[in-house]
Amino acid sequence: MVTALDLAPGALGPEMTAYFAKCGDKLGFVPNVLKAYAFDDAKLAAFVAMYNDLMLAPSGLSKLEREMIAVVVSSVNRCYYCLTAHGAAVRALSGDPVLGELMVMNWRAARLSARERAMLAFSEKLTREPGAVEEEDRARLREAGFSPRDVWDIAAVAGFFNMSNRIASATDMRPNSVYHAQAR
Amino acid sequence: MVTALDLAPGALGPEMTAYFAKCGDKLGFVPNVLKAYAFDDAKLAAFVAMYNDLMLAPSGLSKLEREMIAVVVSSVNRCYYCLTAHGAAVRALSGDPVLGELMVMNWRAARLSARERAMLAFSEKLTREPGAVEEEDRARLREAGFSPRDVWDIAAVAGFFNMSNRIASATDMRPNSVYHAQAR
Amino acid sequence: MVTALDLAPGALGPEMTAYFAKCGDKLGFVPNVLKAYAFDDAKLAAFVAMYNDLMLAPSGLSKLEREMIAVVVSSVNRCYYCLTAHGAAVRALSGDPVLGELMVMNWRAARLSARERAMLAFSEKLTREPGAVEEEDRARLREAGFSPRDVWDIAAVAGFFNMSNRIASATDMRPNSVYHAQAR
Amino acid sequence: MVTALDLAPGALGPEMTAYFAKCGDKLGFVPNVLKAYAFDDAKLAAFVAMYNDLMLAPSGLSKLEREMIAVVVSSVNRCYYCLTAHGAAVRALSGDPVLGELMVMNWRAARLSARERAMLAFSEKLTREPGAVEEEDRARLREAGFSPRDVWDIAAVAGFFNMSNRIASATDMRPNSVYHAQAR
Amino acid sequence: MVTALDLAPGALGPEMTAYFAKCGDKLGFVPNVLKAYAFDDAKLAAFVAMYNDLMLAPSGLSKLEREMIAVVVSSVNRCYYCLTAHGAAVRALSGDPVLGELMVMNWRAARLSARERAMLAFSEKLTREPGAVEEEDRARLREAGFSPRDVWDIAAVAGFFNMSNRIASATDMRPNSVYHAQAR
Amino acid sequence: MVTALDLAPGALGPEMTAYFAKCGDKLGFVPNVLKAYAFDDAKLAAFVAMYNDLMLAPSGLSKLEREMIAVVVSSVNRCYYCLTAHGAAVRALSGDPVLGELMVMNWRAARLSARERAMLAFSEKLTREPGAVEEEDRARLREAGFSPRDVWDIAAVAGFFNMSNRIASATDMRPNSVYHAQAR
Repeated sequence: MVTALDLAPGALGPEMTAYFAKCGDKLGFVPNVLKAYAFDDAKLAAFVAMYNDLMLAPSGLSKLEREMIAVVVSSVNRCYYCLTAHGAAVRALSGDPVLGELMVMNWRAARLSARERAMLAFSEKLTREPGAVEEEDRARLREAGFSPRDVWDIAAVAGFFNMSNRIASATDMRPNSVYHAQAR
Repeated sequence: MVTALDLAPGALGPEMTAYFAKCGDKLGFVPNVLKAYAFDDAKLAAFVAMYNDLMLAPSGLSKLEREMIAVVVSSVNRCYYCLTAHGAAVRALSGDPVLGELMVMNWRAARLSARERAMLAFSEKLTREPGAVEEEDRARLREAGFSPRDVWDIAAVAGFFNMSNRIASATDMRPNSVYHAQAR
Repeated sequence: MVTALDLAPGALGPEMTAYFAKCGDKLGFVPNVLKAYAFDDAKLAAFVAMYNDLMLAPSGLSKLEREMIAVVVSSVNRCYYCLTAHGAAVRALSGDPVLGELMVMNWRAARLSARERAMLAFSEKLTREPGAVEEEDRARLREAGFSPRDVWDIAAVAGFFNMSNRIASATDMRPNSVYHAQAR
Repeated sequence: MVTALDLAPGALGPEMTAYFAKCGDKLGFVPNVLKAYAFDDAKLAAFVAMYNDLMLAPSGLSKLEREMIAVVVSSVNRCYYCLTAHGAAVRALSGDPVLGELMVMNWRAARLSARERAMLAFSEKLTREPGAVEEEDRARLREAGFSPRDVWDIAAVAGFFNMSNRIASATDMRPNSVYHAQAR
Repeated sequence: MVTALDLAPGALGPEMTAYFAKCGDKLGFVPNVLKAYAFDDAKLAAFVAMYNDLMLAPSGLSKLEREMIAVVVSSVNRCYYCLTAHGAAVRALSGDPVLGELMVMNWRAARLSARERAMLAFSEKLTREPGAVEEEDRARLREAGFSPRDVWDIAAVAGFFNMSNRIASATDMRPNSVYHAQAR
Repeated sequence: MVTALDLAPGALGPEMTAYFAKCGDKLGFVPNVLKAYAFDDAKLAAFVAMYNDLMLAPSGLSKLEREMIAVVVSSVNRCYYCLTAHGAAVRALSGDPVLGELMVMNWRAARLSARERAMLAFSEKLTREPGAVEEEDRARLREAGFSPRDVWDIAAVAGFFNMSNRIASATDMRPNSVYHAQAR
């Protein structure tokens, strides 16, 4: 059972069918978040389009940086699914298992660059107190070298995981067990 | 200026170009959130696809209920953009300007059905403390008559505004001024 | 019904009787907060004396500034009654309906002078964490041009709405419906 | 110095002059909160009228109960002035010095009647989260034997100290040193 | 009854028997926290060893400073037992009854040296948000003149009371009544 | 470097010297928390005595249960050292690597017995809001089958990690790297 809601899978169109097959080929499994959305082809397609654009498309943020934001946001929100799946991604992309643990446990305990600290401090504040973000918060990102477009990307990744953390928590989504041992 | 980032508009493909034209025809204006995403056609398309599916596609939740969730989440997060745009939507869809104000100010002060209270209490908890949501929270939704699929839709709408609230706050997104006087 | 307590009106003395008549003449209605206090002439008189002194007597703060503090405090406390009545006052006194909305939704999103920001930041902190206010908070007000007497007036207005917000919330006080459409 | 603002005393009218004299006669001193307001006769008179009505006029709440609410609210808000002055009042009125300490430190550790617990739990919630007070909170007071008028009085006393705590904290008001040793 | 658990006293070994006798001789009573641990000689001995080392052994912090930390931590945690016992210790060691009250009520309202403020600000942050303590917090202690070993001692005392506050609150531990009147 | 304070190791007495040797024999390393205390033999001995009694002595709580409390408390407090060391202990004692991850990430997402849920809910509340723990919280433990002595042990373990989390965070204590890969 992928979520506590246990919604019956719907008929997937050719694009999503192909995408599931591609996941099987490349990863060896279909991530449970995709199975959770599979009750409705349009919802699944919208989620996949947004996720892949955010996490994989060209950006001033590296893929590792985007995954670090994902894990820090998920740590504030205590999302078991996302911490498991994206903690594994930080371990894999960085080749540093301890970095993945630090993002899960407390990013402030990690040895990070000034750029990384600014990025994660902004992401944490945006998660905890979005209404308190002000120009001086954006200014700190600029001082750390981020362009306006980079600020958008930080906000968009942090925002996205604030969404998916809540869908996962609301539905008791369970991560594929394969993540736990990856890249340790 | 639509956001503090002031990103230059990108070249939109035919689908998004047509969508902007359609907004102009139907609403008389293009919502600023769409202009904010217009620096990148793929990001805009992904946002539009997810938004329209969530807020307009068939669901056990009425469109008004979805807008009520949007405003309550945005009130917790104190998002000026979303409170303005979706507060207007609640006023318009309900024909009850005071209901829009109540969702902005404090939904607990509104006279609501048991179904609506359960839906908004869940959305508020999911926004404030997603990691504390448990089976008993889902059970309260079921007792109020919501199906598993309805629970998904509540979570997905609440989750989405937890994303867009943060993108709007991070970028100081400004709502179109036309919303303020709508449906008063 | 003005509050959930539905206390029977008491006999008003000549001063309060005249005051209610004056409200009818000037406003066209008696604000429900006054009707809520009308079960006891002495309590009503004390409330009216303090309110009128605070909000209308000479002060280094303009009447609009005092109303802005009222709305920002009421926004932190999510007081439906006071947000409605004093949100209308901000719209009316400023001639700027959007300013009223911003005070209700998130004052940090408003374009304000340094003086206004200092005043509202102090009022918000005093509302959220009164025990953490220290000399450096008062110093910031002085740097923004406020005199010691102005600091008193900011504290007194912010304090007053921390009182009346709680009486309104405790009793489920309902605002006169006329406020909603005023000065839009 | 009574407050950090150190406002020069104003000319008091005959009523307030007499009241200060009466304080001197009955208490042996003028409470510093009154001296703090003495820069303006009208503000002082309004404060005295409201305070004396709330704390001394006939009510379904005993004077001790009103003082217990005052201290519990002041404990949540960490108001040094009010904890000192009203902690002394609880000790004096109850003849139980330990009860005063418990109200200052943590009312939940005190051995209280069900009526007292309901009254203080409501006052604490109203102080911490006024916007979350709902009908079920009022119902708990009714079940503990409080009338609608009693609910008003609880709300009015709790509200009043939420005001005066903030004025005292904002101005660094210092309590008369005599309170500390009273009724130990 | 010393705690709500009311555990039967166990057989004490010679060291703890002698220690209880010494308490009786020096203090005139055995502190209830020791009686609470007396159900198990090993647990009592471990507690006594750690407590006496922390609070009485040589340190760059004076005994009064250690007691001030104890009371400030206990105030954040609202621990009736520790506020009572260690509030008395601050009064006794300082010869200043008002200082004891200030540590209980709100240390920010006290007139303190820069060294004391730095020490108590660190202790409060460490109590409220231990995971947010960073190098800049330690730097502020160094700037206030504390050595690395002093930082350890501040952390160890603050940490210890975060432990004992919780054991006292979990078990409803009652302070010896003698503390209340001490050193007033 | 074991902590940011980098205190020079002191001369250890025979008992602690033997204990370090025993750690080397049994674990293959000396846990960094012990090295952190090694600047002072008396402090180290007191810590070791209390720790070993709490975590290893006979108790109605199993060793795994005690480690589960340790990790849940450390998760609330976001203590990198303790999450790493005791997360490994949960994995090792349970033979269930995923259980260790769940305790670190969000214990509410784990499939637990009613006994375990009651124990962890109490530990979490005691960590977050010790002053709000009341008789009804103890009653829930009793209903879940815990004896008064068991309640003490839960409180003592939860209390202990509230201490050691803060000492670790205050000093930036680094866990031995060997823990990360243990029992995956």
